Amino acid sequence: MNDTHDPQRQSWVGSANLPGTAFPIQNLPFGVFAGAMGPTVGVAIGDQILDLRACADRLAPVSAACAAANLNPLMALGPSSWAQLRARLSDLLRADHPHAAEHQRALAPHLVAMAQATMLKPALIGDFTDFYASIYHATNVGALFRPESPLLPNYKYVPCAYAGRTSSIVVSGTPVKRPSGQGIPPPGAPPRFGPTQSLDYEIEAAFFVGPGNRLGETIAIEHAAEHLFGVCLLNDWSARDIQSWEYRPLGPFLGKSFATTISPWVVTMEALAPFRAPAPIHDQPPLRYLHSEVDQREGGIDLTLEAYLRSPRMREPVRLSRGNLRHLYWTPAQLLAHHTSNGCNLQPGDLLGCGTASGPGDETRGCLLEITRNGREPITLPNGEQRTFLEDGDQITFRGYCERPGFVSIGLGECTGTVAKLV
Amino acid sequence: MNDTHDPQRQSWVGSANLPGTAFPIQNLPFGVFAGAMGPTVGVAIGDQILDLRACADRLAPVSAACAAANLNPLMALGPSSWAQLRARLSDLLRADHPHAAEHQRALAPHLVAMAQATMLKPALIGDFTDFYASIYHATNVGALFRPESPLLPNYKYVPCAYAGRTSSIVVSGTPVKRPSGQGIPPPGAPPRFGPTQSLDYEIEAAFFVGPGNRLGETIAIEHAAEHLFGVCLLNDWSARDIQSWEYRPLGPFLGKSFATTISPWVVTMEALAPFRAPAPIHDQPPLRYLHSEVDQREGGIDLTLEAYLRSPRMREPVRLSRGNLRHLYWTPAQLLAHHTSNGCNLQPGDLLGCGTASGPGDETRGCLLEITRNGREPITLPNGEQRTFLEDGDQITFRGYCERPGFVSIGLGECTGTVAKLV
Repeated sequence: MNDTHDPQRQSWVGSANLPGTAFPIQNLPFGVFAGAMGPTVGVAIGDQILDLRACADRLAPVSAACAAANLNPLMALGPSSWAQLRARLSDLLRADHPHAAEHQRALAPHLVAMAQATMLKPALIGDFTDFYASIYHATNVGALFRPESPLLPNYKYVPCAYAGRTSSIVVSGTPVKRPSGQGIPPPGAPPRFGPTQSLDYEIEAAFFVGPGNRLGETIAIEHAAEHLFGVCLLNDWSARDIQSWEYRPLGPFLGKSFATTISPWVVTMEALAPFRAPAPIHDQPPLRYLHSEVDQREGGIDLTLEAYLRSPRMREPVRLSRGNLRHLYWTPAQLLAHHTSNGCNLQPGDLLGCGTASGPGDETRGCLLEITRNGREPITLPNGEQRTFLEDGDQITFRGYCERPGFVSIGLGECTGTVAKLV
Repeated sequence: MNDTHDPQRQSWVGSANLPGTAFPIQNLPFGVFAGAMGPTVGVAIGDQILDLRACADRLAPVSAACAAANLNPLMALGPSSWAQLRARLSDLLRADHPHAAEHQRALAPHLVAMAQATMLKPALIGDFTDFYASIYHATNVGALFRPESPLLPNYKYVPCAYAGRTSSIVVSGTPVKRPSGQGIPPPGAPPRFGPTQSLDYEIEAAFFVGPGNRLGETIAIEHAAEHLFGVCLLNDWSARDIQSWEYRPLGPFLGKSFATTISPWVVTMEALAPFRAPAPIHDQPPLRYLHSEVDQREGGIDLTLEAYLRSPRMREPVRLSRGNLRHLYWTPAQLLAHHTSNGCNLQPGDLLGCGTASGPGDETRGCLLEITRNGREPITLPNGEQRTFLEDGDQITFRGYCERPGFVSIGLGECTGTVAKLV
């Protein structure tokens, strides 16, 4: 915690001081928007975006990274540069700075209204890894398909993951076309190829890698935090029928690769500092390379995740679930240490999804597969419609936010996508 | 087939006319080497590399792609540009061209001896997908772990695949460090973390994607060939103990992501034209989106693949296996059509591995897992050493080549890597 987290601090950007904003001056997430000169790095403040390319000359020594077309150069710099930039931006944007009037005069022309901006993918994502870090999700899903042994024997030792598709990662707001594929065939018949009948969402948080490691080198868990830049929301859209037929023995492929949506704002790990939480207690202690005292004490994150559905016939979305990232079995540092434990090289801009972030209560289940028990228990929406899985026109929106008494709440913003009919 | 395949054609580069060369004028594969000006596109001819950046002005209208730092711009151009460039290069390098003397005078200064060149990765690989296209490999491996049902019920319908790691793809010659990880624990005990005890190779061919497709669009199998640029050799190094403990339910992760080696030369699909073969007959006919008459007739490739091992105590390598790509259950066109059937977007430079290319005979088994039946039947090397899996210092080299009466043989060159001790 430092001055940038001071709950008294306010911004001369008035909307940043309103209760309920996701982007007070204590947050300062980074993103990339379509500017007049092409993709442009910005920082969110209230309902505005500060164009960092336009004011890069005030942001030495990281001016070049701020004038880049994506966040990769900034991600590559590491924690001390990030802290320096954050402190500088907080100073430039705060209302009680001795030079606040000058700052406002100089920077106000470089504010862009968020409502008018087109957000882009924040980084070039070289590799996307999707974990399975919620033991509740693993158990709920396992119970549907293996009621006799819901949790596989490796779960409490190995932070399981698969490599995801990077080309089909899209930014919030991009329509998601219903994919076609093969499903499990009826006995004695060949499978049918056609539009998925069980399109689902999965609510996740995802972590952007900062400085990477060289091939063949590992990152010890004690140093993992230095390699994590920040977090966004992620919707791991899934076609359950395609996935369940194809996944043996190599895991998910076409059931996932048609689209993955991420939120445009990357909330830095430094902004999350006031909201860190203890790692959950394991009945099987993690192996040495996955254990550190500091990580056990504060490796978790108290971050609320909500999923909303709005059908074309609904005026207001309905909340389908509310969970919290602090219930993950594995911490972000454990995921990163495990990922590099075989010498696999991470690079700035790589994305690590946590997997569906379900928690210990029914209201925390993070996908329709869990909520409707694979379609066997349809849910009824407020207007009387029923759902087992998603229908064309359905809009899924995720929200994420952190709250703690004595601190200003911060948000991750929204991650949204609407199911487009296959044409 | 066209003039560039003419078996009578010879080059003024003498080494290209020697029997046994992988790179006669009928081949003309593309690669990237470390030139004086940085990464440089070249074409292999005999034991020389023609620097295409240096002679880009003779290669209009594709000069810009030839002067690029990787093959991605060339891959993006598509078959008619590739054919034009190939015809032009064949003309520039052939001995019997009316202007051969002028060509030799102008181009000879731009030849680089292969023995002196440092080869680099040929393309920026945005996504790497590894298939499982050999039914023999799937059956052999399945028999080890599920003797009662070696082949899973989806195999004859779904070209199964997983997304692989791109950051750890390295070019031939890069040492491969033995990875550490967790293996299956003994009953009642926690798993041990340490260097893999079952390091393996997997011999594969891999296809580079040319022009891609937009997210949400598919590529019909009838058009798949237009999107395939060429082929290289690929070693999908695998740590069997790590893989077998981690792979349920999401597939391979750290058991594969520590290294994947590719050969530096990309042999174009056009160079392979004389060596196409019928697709294998399926007892279960493929679904409509995976079937085309042309593909059934000539979608396979008659390409011999050989794997060699040399231990530190051996002077000469020993051949461990010889197989042929024509035995794959799925053709490259089927892999590509399946990959996009859900709307997943492919991009120029994406790499599609075929999976371990085992065939129908014991001598064709493409990895030590199959050859030693998971270590149960060690092999004896010519000098008396035994192997179950790879030991430190072991060098694995793949070779690939095409032969057909009436045509000049062409080769893929070598893909090699030596196991480095973990330090």
